[in-house]
Amino acid sequence: MPHIALNSAEPGIRGLLGYRPETGRPLSELTEVLLRGPSTLTRGERELIAAYVSALNDCRYCASSHSACAAAQLPGGMAVVDQVRAGPGTAPVPRKLKALLAIAAAVQQSGRAVTAGHVAAARAAGATDLEIHDTVLIAATFCMFNRYVDGLATSAPDDPALYAAGAQRLVTHGYRQPPAETGRED
Amino acid sequence: MPHIALNSAEPGIRGLLGYRPETGRPLSELTEVLLRGPSTLTRGERELIAAYVSALNDCRYCASSHSACAAAQLPGGMAVVDQVRAGPGTAPVPRKLKALLAIAAAVQQSGRAVTAGHVAAARAAGATDLEIHDTVLIAATFCMFNRYVDGLATSAPDDPALYAAGAQRLVTHGYRQPPAETGRED
Repeated sequence: MPHIALNSAEPGIRGLLGYRPETGRPLSELTEVLLRGPSTLTRGERELIAAYVSALNDCRYCASSHSACAAAQLPGGMAVVDQVRAGPGTAPVPRKLKALLAIAAAVQQSGRAVTAGHVAAARAAGATDLEIHDTVLIAATFCMFNRYVDGLATSAPDDPALYAAGAQRLVTHGYRQPPAETGRED
Repeated sequence: MPHIALNSAEPGIRGLLGYRPETGRPLSELTEVLLRGPSTLTRGERELIAAYVSALNDCRYCASSHSACAAAQLPGGMAVVDQVRAGPGTAPVPRKLKALLAIAAAVQQSGRAVTAGHVAAARAAGATDLEIHDTVLIAATFCMFNRYVDGLATSAPDDPALYAAGAQRLVTHGYRQPPAETGRED
């Protein structure tokens, strides 16, 4: 049961975005730009970074949701997502993506854990400065979302089919929320 | 030296918001709503939560900047900020704020570290659900900003006078950024 009385039964981040639309709107916009906006990283690759960091943070809702989004948009589907979550070093993904996932894993520990060596390895594998920037920010953003979702003890469904259906909605419609007034009692 | 080539010499988060205005805009809006928007927590109290979490994450730029913002808006000024950073349990702040700072410290570790006991203690000290929500989100947001700022190895000035001057600008003008086009080379 969530730590606070939300104004809907929506699980995970969805209940929180609706509870506090003043913060929900910029959070949704940030997610849309980072995971779906113009980029030389594919949407599947960016969702994979989000899923990987969420799994490292042991956030079941976010890891399940973004794994489903990555699987829906990556060649190889959920099999590749599972291999990345088990350890990107041996997963069948391109060398550049492996280097970016290593940066994301460092960010999950601490910003100070990202070394010049991590960045040089990504650059040697073909990553641009903007790709490195976005990888750091995606990883940092999910360190926020994971803490927000679990820090308020929101609910997380068990059924993988629910996450797959949610992923189809997100792949089609994106993360931006319709304008909404708060229905909470302050 | 930053890990990537930014398009200005601005330190800390400022150089990053300008480098990537597509993400800078929602990040600035989120910060404005959380730290300065309508709330039953004072602006000084919210800046204090941001400063405390940033110090726990050992992010010198964010901890210095938000300590200066808290000091400028809290009764007791920097002496109280320093005492909170040394340990909120014995700092001269109200019981409710102490309980919220304990929630923030748990969030800094992991969302899963926030217990029903933390939340019950905050409620017993008079905290509302929205105050508990905002505390969790402020703490989570600074776990993001700290990783973003340090993960890209941005610069952080040493001189406390620079942070005090920055705080005066933020107290007067807030966190929203003027619209800007990217000047970066993608």
